[in-house]
Amino acid sequence: MPSKEPAAFAVILGGGAGTRLWPASRLARPKQLLSLGGPESLLGAAVRRGRALVGAENTLIVTAADQAAAVRAAIPDLPAANIVAEPVPRNTAAAVGLGAVTAQRRAGPDAVIAVLPADPYIGDEATFARLVHLAIAEARDAIVTIGVRPTHAETGFGYIRLGTRLARAGADPVHDVGGFFEKPDRPTAERYVASGEYLWNSGMFFLTARRMLDEARRHLPALGALLDAAAAADDVDAAIASGYADAPSISIDHGVMEKAGGLRVIPGAFGWNDVGSWAALPARRAPDARGNVVVGGAAATLIDGDGNIVVAEEGAPYVGVLGVRDLVVVATRDAILVIPKDRAQDVRRIVEAAKQSGRDDLL
Amino acid sequence: MPSKEPAAFAVILGGGAGTRLWPASRLARPKQLLSLGGPESLLGAAVRRGRALVGAENTLIVTAADQAAAVRAAIPDLPAANIVAEPVPRNTAAAVGLGAVTAQRRAGPDAVIAVLPADPYIGDEATFARLVHLAIAEARDAIVTIGVRPTHAETGFGYIRLGTRLARAGADPVHDVGGFFEKPDRPTAERYVASGEYLWNSGMFFLTARRMLDEARRHLPALGALLDAAAAADDVDAAIASGYADAPSISIDHGVMEKAGGLRVIPGAFGWNDVGSWAALPARRAPDARGNVVVGGAAATLIDGDGNIVVAEEGAPYVGVLGVRDLVVVATRDAILVIPKDRAQDVRRIVEAAKQSGRDDLL
Repeated sequence: MPSKEPAAFAVILGGGAGTRLWPASRLARPKQLLSLGGPESLLGAAVRRGRALVGAENTLIVTAADQAAAVRAAIPDLPAANIVAEPVPRNTAAAVGLGAVTAQRRAGPDAVIAVLPADPYIGDEATFARLVHLAIAEARDAIVTIGVRPTHAETGFGYIRLGTRLARAGADPVHDVGGFFEKPDRPTAERYVASGEYLWNSGMFFLTARRMLDEARRHLPALGALLDAAAAADDVDAAIASGYADAPSISIDHGVMEKAGGLRVIPGAFGWNDVGSWAALPARRAPDARGNVVVGGAAATLIDGDGNIVVAEEGAPYVGVLGVRDLVVVATRDAILVIPKDRAQDVRRIVEAAKQSGRDDLL
Repeated sequence: MPSKEPAAFAVILGGGAGTRLWPASRLARPKQLLSLGGPESLLGAAVRRGRALVGAENTLIVTAADQAAAVRAAIPDLPAANIVAEPVPRNTAAAVGLGAVTAQRRAGPDAVIAVLPADPYIGDEATFARLVHLAIAEARDAIVTIGVRPTHAETGFGYIRLGTRLARAGADPVHDVGGFFEKPDRPTAERYVASGEYLWNSGMFFLTARRMLDEARRHLPALGALLDAAAAADDVDAAIASGYADAPSISIDHGVMEKAGGLRVIPGAFGWNDVGSWAALPARRAPDARGNVVVGGAAATLIDGDGNIVVAEEGAPYVGVLGVRDLVVVATRDAILVIPKDRAQDVRRIVEAAKQSGRDDLL
């Protein structure tokens, strides 16, 4: 018999560096704080959705210590205590652990945490909210994820195979997870999509605080010990500060989800797009008739081009582009990127070159 | 019997706007004042060659009034009176006329003027100097030009057909001009080059001041009247200032050379390259093994590209380019150009767009 919905927290993972959106993204201005020409930043949108789902009091952001000040400044309408800083970067398993401990200390071990990466763009927020509420309800006795129905054979995402469909009253199906699969090569991705049995791994997970601590103890004992200590400590910040550096640096996917049993997945289609590189920008900003996205108003001119992404940030030089195809051109005040759309993932090589020539100001 | 070589003046045409090298070139910083990453500007090199040929006292620069101050600042080692300002731009026929009047007032009507565009790069200056001395000697009784032996089927230059070879003692041939031909289409250019009978029109002309004034009277009467008035005036500057706006705006090629009779041409190969667009830069700056020219030191990085031209001027943002081919990327403090090499002539369309959006600061 259904009991009332448990206390739920949104744990927004907002700690990535986002090198792939350089030069707009920097160490001190990470990807999730960029608006990318839209009305709000990726993190701002994630927080807005979190507030609508669980309320501002229960919306947490876990972020890197050296980004916490920028995050607080960018998201002023959240209690300061809800911005949880990792003392050192330790990937997402530890970040989710931090969120679980925070939720447990506030609402007990039955509190459900909705782990939500800050990066993705979500076009259909009503559908997204409906599926999150379903996932939170399911998470009382299982680990749940929301998988995204693929729209193309993307090789940049991990995939989840649908298992048996479970008996549920509502219209939205819930399945067992049939397995997690790494980023595939193109033929494999095409096979996945053609089969109809695979979803994109969105990185969204739903589970109780208790379950997260249990799983950490089992699969990542150093992290489990830290979380137990933090859960019981009088001074939680001190407990985290003293032990966090010893936590394993591993993703929540590899560290916990692929090892845990009895996972469930809810398939969804809600305009999800992981803005992982410049090439994904057209999913956020409607391209023109020739497939170009130009951001920057009068400071950016594109003449006679097809399929390009041209961005001039405020303070950047005037950008004039003519006669090119499928190219990314991004200009900020102090740096310019020119790269083909299909190599947008390689931008880190330019950042590395800047670093090697001593240009730490560009990182 | 040869008499002593007549007084000769270099008349360097340094008044062009050079839109095609935007954003490096501007109205207030024309192409000929750019160093393009080399040790000296195009105009600086032209003046250096002129001084070596005829001495600083006889080296004149004809330039636009609104560029004269910038030219004087850039070329401090020339007498100020040798920088002759056109009151308004009137194309090259009038500019050559100004040079002819100046030479005639200083050295009489037999003075030979060597009309030398400021733009081209000249790789083999010894050969160039030898041919100029020959042309000056020939110019006592004819209009002479130096034609450049083509190295490829360029469609961006005009061509000159070689006529009958004249009897001369020296090793360098002198021919009658068999005709001037406009910029050809590619098949025509290929035919020209294959025939061995065509030269690139370098825009260099050699003739006496008297001959220039004669030709102006005959073909461009309004200019002829102005030059006669200026030649006889007590105040030459006032005479020029009052009449120059009425001079026809026409090139020396169309206005005089294609109509005059008995022209002679000296063929030459001396590393001549008209740096008319960014695509010509590799002729000035040796490309790397993959055909790239990168100018800008540590401020410009090119990774895994072929045949590109990447320029970061001082004060420009850091330029990072990866994975592109045959592309021009130029950054200045306030503007960025991205254009395929084979469309480099179209940069004026970007300048026009900047103008139409009110960005006069970028012109």
